[in-house]
Amino acid sequence: MVYRQHETATMRVVACVCDGGASTMRVTEVLRRKGGSVVTIAPDRSVRELLGLLAEHRIGALVVSDDGVHVDGIISERDVVRRLHADGDSILDGAVSAIMTAEVHTCGPQDQVDELMAVMTELRIRHLPVLVDGRLAGIVSIGDVVKHRIAEVQDERDHLTAYITG
Amino acid sequence: MVYRQHETATMRVVACVCDGGASTMRVTEVLRRKGGSVVTIAPDRSVRELLGLLAEHRIGALVVSDDGVHVDGIISERDVVRRLHADGDSILDGAVSAIMTAEVHTCGPQDQVDELMAVMTELRIRHLPVLVDGRLAGIVSIGDVVKHRIAEVQDERDHLTAYITG
Repeated sequence: MVYRQHETATMRVVACVCDGGASTMRVTEVLRRKGGSVVTIAPDRSVRELLGLLAEHRIGALVVSDDGVHVDGIISERDVVRRLHADGDSILDGAVSAIMTAEVHTCGPQDQVDELMAVMTELRIRHLPVLVDGRLAGIVSIGDVVKHRIAEVQDERDHLTAYITG
Repeated sequence: MVYRQHETATMRVVACVCDGGASTMRVTEVLRRKGGSVVTIAPDRSVRELLGLLAEHRIGALVVSDDGVHVDGIISERDVVRRLHADGDSILDGAVSAIMTAEVHTCGPQDQVDELMAVMTELRIRHLPVLVDGRLAGIVSIGDVVKHRIAEVQDERDHLTAYITG
C-alpha cells in the first residue's frame, strides 16, 4: 500500500478510505458462485465407502448426515490417516461415525469470509458447513475462501485502476 | 473498500493509492516467522512410517528426500487416501516412493505470497517446498499463507487507522 499526502488545494483528489485490504465478502457470495449442494455420507457407512466418495468428488472432507439435511458430524482425509495410524487398519471397515468429528464448527450465510479465514487458521480446520435454520445449506473450504479472496482482490484492483485513470 | 471524492479545496486529504488489498509479502518473510526447518522422509521408508511422522508433527504432507537436502518428491494425506482407495491396503506397507508425487512444484524465497496463493488454488496443492540453489530451505503451506495474510491485513488496517486519526 502506498500513501500520498497532499496539502495543496484545487486538485481533484480521490481519498480512498481503504480498509487495509480486508474483505467484506460474505459466505452467501461464495455459495452463489460454487453452489449450495453438499455431498454427505450416512454415519453407518464404512470408511472405505467414504474414501470412494472423496475420490469421486475430488474433495477432502464430507459432512456426515443421516438425512442429508442435519449435520451429525464431519470427516476428513486427515481423520482417516490419523486414526489409521492410531487405531490400525480395522477402522477402514468400521463405520464413519466411529472416527468422525461430532462437534462440528459451522458458519452462516451472512458470516464474513475474512472471519472464516481467521477461524479456520486458528482451529486448523479446512471445512465449514453452512447452516440456515439448522439445515445444511452449503460447505466452504479453505480453498474456496482463498480462491474467492484472490478473485476479489483482482476485482478491487481493476475497479480502483479504472477509477483513478478514468 | 469505500471511495470518497472531494472536489473542494483547502482540506488536508490523504489520497491512499491503495492496491486493492493485494499483498507484497514474500516467502522469505513467512519463513522468518515459521522457520526454515523441514521434516523429510526417505523414499524407501514405508507409508506407515509416513503416517506416524505426519501425526507426530501434526502436518499434512512431507517432503520426500534421500539426503534431507534435495527434493525427490512430496507426499500428502491426500495421496495416501486416494491410493488406498485405488490400489488397496497393500500400499501401506509399500515404500513412500511408490505413491509420492515426483513432479514437485516449488517456490523461491523472493516469490510473492499472493502469487503462491493463486498457484496453490489453481493447481489444488497445499504445500510448496522452498528451494535456494536447488536445496531445501523451507516449506509453505496454504495454512501458512492464509495465516500470514490475515496478520498482514490487520497490520495494514492498524497502520492506516493510525495514519488517518494521527
